[in-house]
Amino acid sequence: MFGQSLEAVRKKRPLIHNITNYVTINDCANVLLACGASPIMADDAAEVEEITVGCDGLVLNIGTLNHRRIPAMLKAGKKAKALGHPVVLDPVGAGASAFRTQTAQDIIKTVRPDVIRANSSEIRALAAGTTTTKGVDADTNDEQAAADHIDEVVVFAKHYAAQTGAIIAMTGVADIVADANHAYVIHNGHPMMADVTGTGCQLSAITAAFVAASPDDALMATVAAVCAMGLAGEIAHDRLEAQDGNATYRTYIIDAIYRMTPSQLSEGAKVDIR
Amino acid sequence: MFGQSLEAVRKKRPLIHNITNYVTINDCANVLLACGASPIMADDAAEVEEITVGCDGLVLNIGTLNHRRIPAMLKAGKKAKALGHPVVLDPVGAGASAFRTQTAQDIIKTVRPDVIRANSSEIRALAAGTTTTKGVDADTNDEQAAADHIDEVVVFAKHYAAQTGAIIAMTGVADIVADANHAYVIHNGHPMMADVTGTGCQLSAITAAFVAASPDDALMATVAAVCAMGLAGEIAHDRLEAQDGNATYRTYIIDAIYRMTPSQLSEGAKVDIR
Amino acid sequence: MFGQSLEAVRKKRPLIHNITNYVTINDCANVLLACGASPIMADDAAEVEEITVGCDGLVLNIGTLNHRRIPAMLKAGKKAKALGHPVVLDPVGAGASAFRTQTAQDIIKTVRPDVIRANSSEIRALAAGTTTTKGVDADTNDEQAAADHIDEVVVFAKHYAAQTGAIIAMTGVADIVADANHAYVIHNGHPMMADVTGTGCQLSAITAAFVAASPDDALMATVAAVCAMGLAGEIAHDRLEAQDGNATYRTYIIDAIYRMTPSQLSEGAKVDIR
Repeated sequence: MFGQSLEAVRKKRPLIHNITNYVTINDCANVLLACGASPIMADDAAEVEEITVGCDGLVLNIGTLNHRRIPAMLKAGKKAKALGHPVVLDPVGAGASAFRTQTAQDIIKTVRPDVIRANSSEIRALAAGTTTTKGVDADTNDEQAAADHIDEVVVFAKHYAAQTGAIIAMTGVADIVADANHAYVIHNGHPMMADVTGTGCQLSAITAAFVAASPDDALMATVAAVCAMGLAGEIAHDRLEAQDGNATYRTYIIDAIYRMTPSQLSEGAKVDIR
Repeated sequence: MFGQSLEAVRKKRPLIHNITNYVTINDCANVLLACGASPIMADDAAEVEEITVGCDGLVLNIGTLNHRRIPAMLKAGKKAKALGHPVVLDPVGAGASAFRTQTAQDIIKTVRPDVIRANSSEIRALAAGTTTTKGVDADTNDEQAAADHIDEVVVFAKHYAAQTGAIIAMTGVADIVADANHAYVIHNGHPMMADVTGTGCQLSAITAAFVAASPDDALMATVAAVCAMGLAGEIAHDRLEAQDGNATYRTYIIDAIYRMTPSQLSEGAKVDIR
Repeated sequence: MFGQSLEAVRKKRPLIHNITNYVTINDCANVLLACGASPIMADDAAEVEEITVGCDGLVLNIGTLNHRRIPAMLKAGKKAKALGHPVVLDPVGAGASAFRTQTAQDIIKTVRPDVIRANSSEIRALAAGTTTTKGVDADTNDEQAAADHIDEVVVFAKHYAAQTGAIIAMTGVADIVADANHAYVIHNGHPMMADVTGTGCQLSAITAAFVAASPDDALMATVAAVCAMGLAGEIAHDRLEAQDGNATYRTYIIDAIYRMTPSQLSEGAKVDIR
C-alpha cells in the first residue's frame, strides 16, 4: 500500500520547489532525485511565484532563516495554495528564537500549509499558548518521554492538526502522523539518524513529493514518506562497517531511498493506527 | 590531446573565483580541487572585484539567484574580462523565471562571457526571440529529441555562439561544444548523472579551470572539460555496487576527477567534429 | 590526556552556534555531531543573540562573507562573551580582500574571541602592520617555509596571541597552538587534507565544542581539537583505496571523528611543547 505512494512519485516525477536553509539544501535536492522527484531551489521574492507555478509542490523550511526569505516564503506559499499544490512547512528551530517561532506561526496562519513536519519540541513550541495538553508540555526536551506517553502525544497531534488544518508529522523516537481524526504511529528509523544533520529536512522534502504524487490521499502519502525515510535509515545502518560514521551514513541513507522498491517499502513499513 | 588540457590545470593550479548557488557550492569547491585547481567563493559586491583580481578565472552561476548577488556578478564579470580572465556563465534555471532569464541576458550583454555552459532548454530560453532556428525550438523540453536532431542543434549552437561571442557548451543526452565556426559532439557521460544534483554546476566550475590553464585554446579546453566530466561519470558508474545510489555516485564522480590521469582522459574522450 | 578533552565533549554534548559560510556549512554541522556536540546555524541579526543564549559556544567564520552577516556576527559575539561562552573566529580569506581583513579585525577588536583558528597566511594578513616579525612576513604564501622556520613562527604566534588576547591556532604543514606564554606544535594530519574544502572550517567548529566542554583549560582543549582533526585525516587516509579521491576522503575524515575514541586520540596525538 505504501509502495503505491512511492510508485506514484516515480511515475509522476513531481517537481518540488524548495525555499530552504543553506545547511542541508544539497541533501534535500539529492534525496528528491533519489525518490524520483525533481528539485528546484529558488528563494528570491522576485521569482518565487513564477517558479512555483511551474512546480507540483512546495517546501517552506525555516532553517538559517533570514529576513529576505520570509516574504518569498509567504508569496510562494499563497501562490502554491491558490494553485492547489501541496505545501509542506518545516519549522526548523521553532522555539529556539522568537524570530523563528513567529515566522512559522505567520506561515501557518497566512499560507495554511497542508503538512507541518517537525520534531516534537518544535511542534510543542508552535502549539504553546494555544493548547492546554499538559501531558505533552510537561515533557519538553524529552523525546523519550514523548515515546513513553504516546497516547497523549497522539491526542495532542490530532488536536493541533484540527487547529491548523494541516497534517502533523511529528518525528522523534516514535513518529506520529495525524490529521484531526486519524493518527498513525510509525516505528521505522534508527537512533543514529539523529547524528546526521538534516534527515528531518530531507523527510520534509520527500513528503512534498509523496503528497504531490498522491494528492487524493495526502495523509497516507505523508505516512508513506515518513516510513520511507525511516526505512532508509534502517537499510543504510545495516550497510555500515566498523569504520563508517555519520558521514558515510548520510550517503547511504540517500542511496537507500534511491534503491528502495515499492514492495520493499510496503513490507518494511511499521505502522500502527491510533 | 585532451590530456594536455588536464595536465595544464594540474601544473598551473589556477585559482577560480565562484559566484554561485547554495545548493552545489561545496561540490564545486571540491571538484575544482579534484581537477588540480583551487576555489574561492565570494559573492558580496564589496569584495568581488578585489577577489577576482587575485584569481585566474571566474564562474557566474545563477542558481538560487538573489538580488544581492546580481551587482556582484556584474562587477566581478567586468573586472575579470578587463584582466583577460576567462569568465564562464552557468545560466541555471534560465527560462524558469523572467528574473533568471533576464539576469542571464544582462550578464551576456554586459560581461560578454567566454563560455556559456548550460543544458539545452536553458540555452533555448536564452536564444528565444533572437533566433528562428525552428527545428530546435520545436523540441523544447525534449533532450532526446535534441539528440535525434543533432545536426540542427549543432547549427543552432554555432549560431548562438556567433551571436554572443561565447563558446557554447550545451549538455544533455549528447553534449555539444561550439564556437561560431567549429562544433564538437561529445558522447561521454552516463544517464545516471542526471540523478545527482549539480553535475552541470561542477562542469561549469572545471571549465573555468581548464580554460584558465589553456587560454590560447579555449575551445579545446572546454571540450576537454566536458569530456573529463562525462568520463568521470562513466568511471564512477563502473564502481557502483548493488546498494549504491545517487549519493555514493556523487562522491565517486568527484573521486574520478581527482584520480583521472591525462592519458586516461585522452583515451576515454569520445568526440566527433561537426 | 587529550582523550579527556574528547570525552568531555561526548559527555557534555555542547550546543554550538555557527555563523558561517555556505560552502562548508553542512560539513561543519556533521563534524560537530561526529565529535559529540550539536550544531545550530543561525545568521540573521534578528535572532542571533537569542540563539546564542541557548548555546554553549559560538563560531564566527567569515567565508562567503556578506554585509548582512557582519552585524549578526558582532551581536552574537558580544552576547556570547558576556555569557562566558567561548568564541572561535575563523578569518577565512583574511588578506584576500580588504572587506574580509577589516571585518576580521573588527571582530577581534570588538568581540575579543577566545580562539583565532586560521592558516598561516590569514594570520599573517591580520598581524601585518601590527608586528615586525620579519622572518615570518618574508615567508608569505609559503607554508613549507613556515614549517622550516618553526621557531620563528612560534615566536610570532605567541606575540600575536599576546596582542589579541586569543589562543592562536595556526594550521598548515605544521600546526601551532599558542597563547602568550606557551606554544604547542602538532604534527598530526595528512597533506591530502588540503584537497578537501573546509577541513579548516571543520576544525574551527570542533574547537568551539572542545573549548566549551573544557572551559578551564581552553589551551589544552584547542590542542586536543587540532590533534583530533589531524588524526582523523591520518585515519581516513589509511582507509582510502586506489579509486578513492578527495570526495571519499571528505566523508572518511568526518567518519574518523565519529568513531574516534579518547584513548585513540591520546595515543595518536603528536605534540611538541615549545
